[in-house]
Amino acid sequence: MAKVYNFNAGPATLPTEVMQQAQEEFIDYRGLGYGIIEASHRSPDFDAVITEAEADLRQLLALPDRYATLFLQGGASMQFAMVPMNLMTCNGTADYIDTGAWSSKAFKEAAKQGTPQLVASGKDGKYTQIPDLDSLPLRANADYLHITSNNTIAGTQYARFPVPPDGVPLIADMSSDILSRRLNVEQFGVIYAGAQKNLGPSGVTLVILDKALAERSPKSLPTMLNYNTFIDKKSMFNTPPTFSIYMLGLVLKWILKQGGVEAVEAVNERKAALLYSCLDQDDFFSGPVAKESRSRMNVCFRLPTEELEAEFIREAANNGMIGLKGHRSVGGIRASIYNAMPLAGIECLVAFMNEFRARKG
Amino acid sequence: MAKVYNFNAGPATLPTEVMQQAQEEFIDYRGLGYGIIEASHRSPDFDAVITEAEADLRQLLALPDRYATLFLQGGASMQFAMVPMNLMTCNGTADYIDTGAWSSKAFKEAAKQGTPQLVASGKDGKYTQIPDLDSLPLRANADYLHITSNNTIAGTQYARFPVPPDGVPLIADMSSDILSRRLNVEQFGVIYAGAQKNLGPSGVTLVILDKALAERSPKSLPTMLNYNTFIDKKSMFNTPPTFSIYMLGLVLKWILKQGGVEAVEAVNERKAALLYSCLDQDDFFSGPVAKESRSRMNVCFRLPTEELEAEFIREAANNGMIGLKGHRSVGGIRASIYNAMPLAGIECLVAFMNEFRARKG
Repeated sequence: MAKVYNFNAGPATLPTEVMQQAQEEFIDYRGLGYGIIEASHRSPDFDAVITEAEADLRQLLALPDRYATLFLQGGASMQFAMVPMNLMTCNGTADYIDTGAWSSKAFKEAAKQGTPQLVASGKDGKYTQIPDLDSLPLRANADYLHITSNNTIAGTQYARFPVPPDGVPLIADMSSDILSRRLNVEQFGVIYAGAQKNLGPSGVTLVILDKALAERSPKSLPTMLNYNTFIDKKSMFNTPPTFSIYMLGLVLKWILKQGGVEAVEAVNERKAALLYSCLDQDDFFSGPVAKESRSRMNVCFRLPTEELEAEFIREAANNGMIGLKGHRSVGGIRASIYNAMPLAGIECLVAFMNEFRARKG
Repeated sequence: MAKVYNFNAGPATLPTEVMQQAQEEFIDYRGLGYGIIEASHRSPDFDAVITEAEADLRQLLALPDRYATLFLQGGASMQFAMVPMNLMTCNGTADYIDTGAWSSKAFKEAAKQGTPQLVASGKDGKYTQIPDLDSLPLRANADYLHITSNNTIAGTQYARFPVPPDGVPLIADMSSDILSRRLNVEQFGVIYAGAQKNLGPSGVTLVILDKALAERSPKSLPTMLNYNTFIDKKSMFNTPPTFSIYMLGLVLKWILKQGGVEAVEAVNERKAALLYSCLDQDDFFSGPVAKESRSRMNVCFRLPTEELEAEFIREAANNGMIGLKGHRSVGGIRASIYNAMPLAGIECLVAFMNEFRARKG
C-alpha cells in the first residue's frame, strides 16, 4: 500500500491509528463475535461507545454542565434550519455575519423562518477577509449572533470571536475547525459541527448547546427538529448513526492521546506556518487571503496560470498527494490540513511545491 | 472468534461476506491508499459507490423511471415529519392506519402539520392483528394513505396492501421489511426505510418516491426537508452519510448475488416457517399474533412465565444467540430474522428452543 496524503476538504483523512483499530475490530468488536456496526443502539456495548464519546468530548473542551452534547444527523446544513427553528423564536430576528458560501446558506435558511439580518459580509471582497469585528452593528434584540468560525472555500478563519450584546448568545458553525485549537466554550450559546473534517466520518453532527436556550424551542416543531428531543433522550430518541459515532469516539480518544486540544493546536500551528511560509517565499504561489484572516485548516492558493494549477494538481496526485483542487466555485489549489493530517504530509507537500516552483517558476 | 447469531431488531446483523469485504478494504479501498470512509463525496470513487447503489436498487425493485431513489439522514422518524410536510399539502389531511408504535408516531408527527385521520387502529387488540383491509373508511380527499408494512414490536406484517381511492397515493414505512419479499412498487407513491434492518447499517434512510408527488412540496420548507432538494442534487446537496451508503451498496450487491429479492424471499419464507412451526407445536411457546398477520421479519413469542423468558434469553445468549429480548414495551421474546440472518441461525435457535422446551416444559 503506497502512502497517500489526502488533502480533501471533507470527508477527510482520519488518523492512521484510528483507521487501523477500526479495521482490526470491524467484524469482531472486542470479542463480541460481531461488529459494533451490527450492535443494537440499546446494547451495553454501544451505550459505552456513546457515553465515552460524550465524556471524552466534555473533557477535551472542559465543558460546563450547563451544556448538552448532542449527536444528530443531517450535517451543518440541517443545523442551518434547526438553529432558527428552535432559537430565533423570541424576537424572530437574529444577526448573521456572512464570511462565505456556508454562512450565506445558513442565513438563507434563517430567512425562511423569520427576518434575520446580515450585520457584515465579506462578499464584495470575495470573502478573502474576516470582517472587522469592532465595527459590527450588533443588535441587542437579536435572538442570537451567528458566525462560521472557519470557511473551507475561501480559506479564512476567525482569529478571535465577536462579542455580542449582553444576553445575545453567540452561535458558531465550527464544522471545519472544532477541536483544532483551544476554545472558551462559555463564549458560545451553541456550537455545531458536521463531523467529517476534524471529528470523524460523515453521517454525524455534533451540537453543543447551552440547555437554557432549548427552552425557546416551540412545542409545535417536528419531534426530530426539536433540540429538547435529543437532550431528553441523550441523542437516542431514535436510532443514531452508530458507526459514525463509534468512529468519532475513536478520533476523540486519539486527540486525548496526542495530549488534548492544546497539543493538537501546536502541531496545527506548525503545519500552517510551514505551508504559508512556502507561499510567502516569492510570487509563484499566491494566497488571496488577508494574512490576519488566514485559515489554519484550509490553505488556499493560486499559481501563475490555470494550466500550471492543473499540472500541479495532476503531478501532486501522481506523487501521492490527492484532493488538492480548490472548490469548484473559486478554483485554484486548496490544501485541507485538519487535525488528522500529519506534519509529514505538509513536509511532503512543501517539498513538492518547492521542487515544482524551481522547475516551472 | 466464536459464532454468534445476532437477533437484534436493528441495527442488526449484516451478511458475513459484506462484513468481511468491508473489513478487507477498510484502510485501503481498492488500491486507493486510503479508506472509502475518508473519500470526498465528490470523488469519482464515492460517485461510483452511490451510482451503483442506486442502479442495483433499481434493478432489485424493477423501479420505473418515474421514481426517484434518495439517500437521506434521520431515519424513519425524520420521514414521519417530512412526508406530511411535503405531501399533506393539497387538502391538509391524510389517512393513517395504526398498526403499532411506529405508525402511531408517524400519525402524531402528521398531526403537527395538519389534520390527518386514523382510518383503522389495532390498538384495542394490542396490535396483534393487521386491520381488515376491506372495510377501511378511506377518503377520496386524503392527500395520501399511510401504512407501516411490518411492525417490529408487535411482530405483525401486511400480507397484502390496502388499495386507496383513485388518485390517493399509498405511502409505506418499510423500514423493517424492504427487499425481504417481492413488491409491486407501482402500488406506492412513496416507500421509505431506515437502512439498519434489511439494507445496511444505521445512518442512512432510503426514500423511493414518485417524482410527480414532489411537486406538492411547499417552497417555504427548509431546504434539507424538501424532497426536491435531494431529487435535484441526486442525494448530494450536502455531504451524505458516505460510509453507510457504501455498506448499503455492498448489501444490495449481496442480495443480487443471492439471486435477487425472489431468492431472498424464498429463504425468508423457510426461516419463518421453521420458527413458527416450532411455536405451533404445543403451548409451551405461544405467539400472540393472529396467524394471517404474522411477520416474517420479527417473530414474537412468550413462554409460560416471565422467569422462564429471562432464563431463555440468558441461556440463548450463553449459546451464542443474542438480541432475543422483546421490546421493553411488550416484553417476551423477539427473534428478528431479516435478510442477513442465515437459515443456519434459525436452525440453531429452533434446536435450542426444542431442547429448552424438553427440559422445562
